Amino acid sequence: MSGRLIGVGVGPGDPELVTLKALRALREADVVAYFAKAGHASHARAIVAAHLRAGTEELPLLYPMTTEHPKTAACYRDALGAFYDASAAAVARHLDAGRTVAVIAEGDPLFYGSYMHLHVRLAAKYPHEIVAGVTGMSGCWSAAGAPIAQGDDVFAVLPATLAAEELERRLADCDAAVVMKLGRHLPKVRRALERTGRLARAIYVERGTMADAAMMRLAEKKDDAAPYFAVVLVPGWNAPGNAS
Amino acid sequence: MSGRLIGVGVGPGDPELVTLKALRALREADVVAYFAKAGHASHARAIVAAHLRAGTEELPLLYPMTTEHPKTAACYRDALGAFYDASAAAVARHLDAGRTVAVIAEGDPLFYGSYMHLHVRLAAKYPHEIVAGVTGMSGCWSAAGAPIAQGDDVFAVLPATLAAEELERRLADCDAAVVMKLGRHLPKVRRALERTGRLARAIYVERGTMADAAMMRLAEKKDDAAPYFAVVLVPGWNAPGNAS
Repeated sequence: MSGRLIGVGVGPGDPELVTLKALRALREADVVAYFAKAGHASHARAIVAAHLRAGTEELPLLYPMTTEHPKTAACYRDALGAFYDASAAAVARHLDAGRTVAVIAEGDPLFYGSYMHLHVRLAAKYPHEIVAGVTGMSGCWSAAGAPIAQGDDVFAVLPATLAAEELERRLADCDAAVVMKLGRHLPKVRRALERTGRLARAIYVERGTMADAAMMRLAEKKDDAAPYFAVVLVPGWNAPGNAS
Repeated sequence: MSGRLIGVGVGPGDPELVTLKALRALREADVVAYFAKAGHASHARAIVAAHLRAGTEELPLLYPMTTEHPKTAACYRDALGAFYDASAAAVARHLDAGRTVAVIAEGDPLFYGSYMHLHVRLAAKYPHEIVAGVTGMSGCWSAAGAPIAQGDDVFAVLPATLAAEELERRLADCDAAVVMKLGRHLPKVRRALERTGRLARAIYVERGTMADAAMMRLAEKKDDAAPYFAVVLVPGWNAPGNAS
């Protein structure tokens, strides 16, 4: 009999934002697997480090060094695809041996999470379960105390990689938004918010629910430096004149 | 010295999807407050019932019966506004007396949650904190095992109350979506999904993470009956041909 695959959301970073269900999955798992960059600690593992049972087998899935390829290149995608295939095979070997594998994932496993790459390769073949987690964006607007959407608001998650006009069009077309993956795109995002009249209410959040979180009104941020995982929140409902 | 206001997300329904931080907030609170319909139990309270300390004071905030007014009427909005004012005042009396008040909320407090009505009335005057929670929609796509969004997907939350053409336009304009508040709008939502080529991948979810959850491909749902809180998931990334 094969083991069970569990995609376990461990929340946005604060170790207290882990659910009881995630902790149970960790206790019951024979193997705890996680993605990490080679040479770096896994964020997901760090979040639940205090809860790992001594003796639980760990399966780190280490991203290959792909910096020699531009991210848009076919060879980069091929290298990643091969890595996810090999990772799924490594997890499958444990499942075939009857072991339950908990794959821990920052945030929520099925919302922009790397666990999804294993899920689509394994879920049809093995019994599986998903433990929902608190998303990174929930962690960010909670840390900022910013009511994000209410009532009949249309809410959108927009990658900062969108072209400038596209970003403007989409910002103008929703009530509330989170712009993700800022990095070097912050100047473009700032302009799009300005041109759509949303800069005044935009909030910049860095390292969301970590101990060293930083957040400020984007209009007050002097420079355009932003890490890849920083986000901009554009609250809908609590916009001026709409606060009750 | 005034007490502290804490908006506490208790997750989508499964009592195990409560975070450690939420449980600590409940333990530390002098008063636990929650919204409920008059004559009905509070869903949020039911989720954490096993964790309430004996002797914790409870403050139920009971929605007024407003069925005599149509929902769009000014008198309905006025009645609700007055109710939220009175609720905030009831919470403020405890805060003024130095008591910490945990307002428990299903899902995430600042994401379409009724706690927000207290937050905008009290957060400027009292020390406050938000405990992020697992959203109802995360609970739904996890229960369905449906990878919802990945990479540069644009993700949208759309209320089913939108006009038919508007719903179609927005569904066609995003990669992934959750359509909320279905109720009597399901036939319109079904047509919009069909006309935008998204019906085949749409998943209908009722009572998301409750013990009696029901879910199915919307295309296979024979009738158009849906409770108000049912949702339709439109996965982006895992659409056919895009599964790796």
